[in-house]
Parts: sequence; C-alpha cells; structure tokens
Amino acid sequence: MPELPKSVEIVEVAARDGIQNEQTILSVDTKLELIRRAIDAGARRLEVTSFVNPRRVPQMADADDLAARLPRGAARYVGLALNARGFERAVAAGLDEANCVVVASDTFNRRNQGVGTEDTLATWAEIAQAAKGRIGTGLTIGAAFGCPFEGEVPLARLLEVVERAMAHPPDELALADTIGVASPADVLERVGAVRRAFPDVPIRLHLHNTRNTGLANAWAGIMAGAVTLDSSLGGVGGCPFAPRATGNIPTEDLVYMLDRAGISTGLDLDGCIAAAEWLEAQLGHTLPGMVMKAGGFPAPEAA
Amino acid sequence: MPELPKSVEIVEVAARDGIQNEQTILSVDTKLELIRRAIDAGARRLEVTSFVNPRRVPQMADADDLAARLPRGAARYVGLALNARGFERAVAAGLDEANCVVVASDTFNRRNQGVGTEDTLATWAEIAQAAKGRIGTGLTIGAAFGCPFEGEVPLARLLEVVERAMAHPPDELALADTIGVASPADVLERVGAVRRAFPDVPIRLHLHNTRNTGLANAWAGIMAGAVTLDSSLGGVGGCPFAPRATGNIPTEDLVYMLDRAGISTGLDLDGCIAAAEWLEAQLGHTLPGMVMKAGGFPAPEAA
Repeated sequence: MPELPKSVEIVEVAARDGIQNEQTILSVDTKLELIRRAIDAGARRLEVTSFVNPRRVPQMADADDLAARLPRGAARYVGLALNARGFERAVAAGLDEANCVVVASDTFNRRNQGVGTEDTLATWAEIAQAAKGRIGTGLTIGAAFGCPFEGEVPLARLLEVVERAMAHPPDELALADTIGVASPADVLERVGAVRRAFPDVPIRLHLHNTRNTGLANAWAGIMAGAVTLDSSLGGVGGCPFAPRATGNIPTEDLVYMLDRAGISTGLDLDGCIAAAEWLEAQLGHTLPGMVMKAGGFPAPEAA
Repeated sequence: MPELPKSVEIVEVAARDGIQNEQTILSVDTKLELIRRAIDAGARRLEVTSFVNPRRVPQMADADDLAARLPRGAARYVGLALNARGFERAVAAGLDEANCVVVASDTFNRRNQGVGTEDTLATWAEIAQAAKGRIGTGLTIGAAFGCPFEGEVPLARLLEVVERAMAHPPDELALADTIGVASPADVLERVGAVRRAFPDVPIRLHLHNTRNTGLANAWAGIMAGAVTLDSSLGGVGGCPFAPRATGNIPTEDLVYMLDRAGISTGLDLDGCIAAAEWLEAQLGHTLPGMVMKAGGFPAPEAA
C-alpha cells in the first residue's frame, strides 16, 4: 500500500466557480452566508469571487462589495483575476490571494480571456512582479488535461506553458481539468512531470466531475503529491438538468473519501452536508453531490 | 508513476443488479435486447439474472426463461445464486458461471439470504463441491467494506470469512462494496490483504457509486491488482430521484476512464453510451451515468 499523506488542504470554491453560471443571482448577503457556513464547517481557504467584467459574468458583479464585507481573520480569501485590471481589483479589495489563470490551449485562452496564451503569460510576468509584498499568488493552468476546442493538449505543450509561467514563480501552481476530461493516469503523469520539473512549488488541483472521474482524479493527484484540492459544496458548478452539466468535485464527497482514508482536511463532514443542503435550497435545484443524498458511513443499527 | 495493467475485464451487470430494483418490470424480450446491445458494445461477460425467489425480487421471476433464450457463444453468462436451490437452477439453465454470495456481516447475510454467515459458508462448501465440472464459480463477499446494519466490518472479520470460504476455492473471488461506502484506501488495504493471503485467486470488485467514490475505488482496485470489475450501463441500480440512490459504477464512465488511461477493456465507448441511452429510454427515467450526458473526450473543433 502506498504511503498516504496525513492531510490535504481543500479550497472551497462554491462562492466563485460554483455559482458563477447559476441563473439565480445570489445577493451579497446570501453569498456571505454561504461563506460563513463553509467556514463553520471548517473551511479555512475559500475562493470567494472573481474580478471580471460583470457583463460577462453577472453573478460576479458584486465582487468589490462582497470582498469589503468578508469576515476577516476567519479564513484566507482568494479572488480570481484573469488580467492586470482584475489583479489590481483583488489587491485593492484586500484579499489574501489572487488566483491568476493561463490556459494551456491558445484557443481556450482566447475564449476565456480575449487574448492568446502568449499575451497572458506576459501579463502573468507583470502581475507576479506587481504582487510582491502586496498579495499572495496562485497560478492556475487551465485546460491542463484537454481543451473543448483543440481536443488533446500534449504534455509537452503543458510543460512548455508551465515552464514559461514558472519564470515568475507563483506561491502555488494549479493544474485545472477545466472541462472534466482527465483520467487518473493523466493526473499521475502530469502532476508527476510538473513536480519533477519544479519540485519546490506546491501543487493544487482544480477538478471537475463532468465524466465521473473527479474523485478518482483527486485520489491520483494526492498520490502524485498534490497538496491542495479545489472543491465546491454540493458539487455546484453546472446545472444537473443540462445535457452537459459540469460541476466541481463536491466538497462533502471529497471529505467523505479522505476521512475514510484517514487523510485529514480540517473540514467536518456533517457540517459540509448541512452547508450543501442549505446552498441547494438557495439555488432551488438539485446539486450533484452524492454524500448529501446518501449520508455518511452508516451508524450501526440500534439493537 | 505506478505501472498500469494493459487490460482490465468488465462484467456487465445491468441485466441483473442494474434493474433488479426497478419498478418497471422489463419483458424477457427487452432484457435480451439489453444483453444483445451490451454484447454489440463489446461486453463478453455478463451477469444476466439471479435465481432467487420471485416474490422477493419480481424483476427476476423470468430467470429460467431468459436463460433459455440467451444467444449462446456470444459471451459468458453469469447467474446469481444465493443458496443451493438457486445454484442448481443456474446449472440447469446452462449458464457459464454461478455467482454465489457470502456476506461479511452476519446481520446483512440474514437480511439478504435468510440465514447467518456461518450457514451460508456451509452452503458454499456444498456448492463448490457440486459445481466441479458442471459450471464455473465466482464467490462474492458482500458488505466487504461496511454494513448498513452493523456499520464497520473489521478487516480481520473480512479476512476470516474469506479464509473460511477459500477452503473451497471459487474460480474467482469478489469483494463487494454493496452499499457504496469504501474509500480508495479501504480498497487498497482489503484487496492487498486478500491477495497476500490468497495470491492465486483472481480478484473481482463489485462497486457502487453511492458516495461518488466508485471510480476512485475502481482505480485503486486496479492499482491493487484486481483484474475484473462489475459495472452497469448507465450506472443503473438505483433511482436517481430517491434520497439514497445507489447505482453500480457506470460501464461507459469506467470505459472512458480506462480508455484515457490506456487500459483496454474490449468495450467500445460510443457503443456503451448508445446502449445506456437505449436502456434509459426503456426505464423511463434518468440514469446516473455521466459520460452519456457529457460525451467522450471532445474532438477538435472544425476549423
């Protein structure tokens, strides 16, 4: 049996990636309640918003207002920034970390950020300089396992983008399976390759459970040495009634798996289930999380 | 990166475990069509029915009739038998294999089979003798990772039941996560322990995706040396609208994961998706499989 880590860190992303495509625009009060409930369940690092164009992502139009009202000191708060302007907004908002994105496939980078991968790498170089002493940085490599427009993203291409980005090392490097196509073999290969090339940068994984491989990929990532995983309460992140629904891996399902494996996350399973149920009620539709439906490990029946 | 096997065998169980709890009783013609479609998609070993009391499992009342009409030579057919009577029916029906069950927890064995684990072990000893030269045998250890009534099933208890059963070795030994509670660490531990104790018996895993860990457990099982996995088209096996829905791992999701990992199954992903969609239409409700909704790995966009 391989040696398992004693603990893994979870970044709760329901308030950002989780709800960004939801039809229902949640109020700042509701979002703060979501964040508070996640913190009550043990979350200590949360991606809470993105500093993007509100016309493109209406759910995130309240980013500055939300940031101003966060309960400071209770957790580390991360904001997504897709360009220099977003980064400066994250700094001004007083967040703890800016999570920047470079997409491994040029086509997806253009659709996501309006410019190609080269341009975004140049922006990252500027942001990395500007961040020093002001804010923590994470750099997420999008579509690291495949692209909805270009299909396969060769390992060599991923490593080239990572190498270019690592000329200005972030505090943490993330590989994102943005469209949920990875297999555990891909995760073992790619996390392994990045760690061999850059053994000193902590690796985070951002996984989607689009093809049912999300927790398998999380497990493989942990085996390969990833120390942090993104997940969302209830697996929010896509409409379960849409034909190509695509949620994040559900926090409570991940916590269940890791609890049973003796890997500590600091999160409380029952608290996560309760928070996911509350979020489901706010959104008014079923979330894809499974432990919130099945319950945790069954208690012995009363005699 | 650990060495991956070149291939893994899949047993298609939609026609048995998949539909046994469905409200809609499928006709023998429809079941034969399901089996034919699975074979067309590449399935070569299928659990097709169970020889149980039709009052307890009405969906399986047609077991003998179905068995008589199977397209012989196209695949290996397995029938579930929970006692000596069921075993003799499987032999008389001319199936290739009888899959017998001993449950690791006494309470569950009583609920499932009407007698305790000790009695069923004694029955297994008789069946194993009676099977020689007449029919292949699999022995499935139910609730090998946890029991809905007793809670934890200690590893020592599992190994004791396995050891008792292996006094009369089946052709294949299966560990069943009957209620979908396992983590990959449990699978690594238990498959590893059974293989160390009995290195010569091939190990099959029967997994349910009740808590989203199904494919992670399949992956861990393959890493631990399991050579065969049960799965069902569409992940049929529980109503997705029920609060504690609990399907088998979906065949096409498993095939997707293994295809992407370069592990051959002999099954064709598109064929499996088509068969799962057909089955969904027959049952009249959404199945939990995810690849049938999301599609396989995306083809590059036309220029």
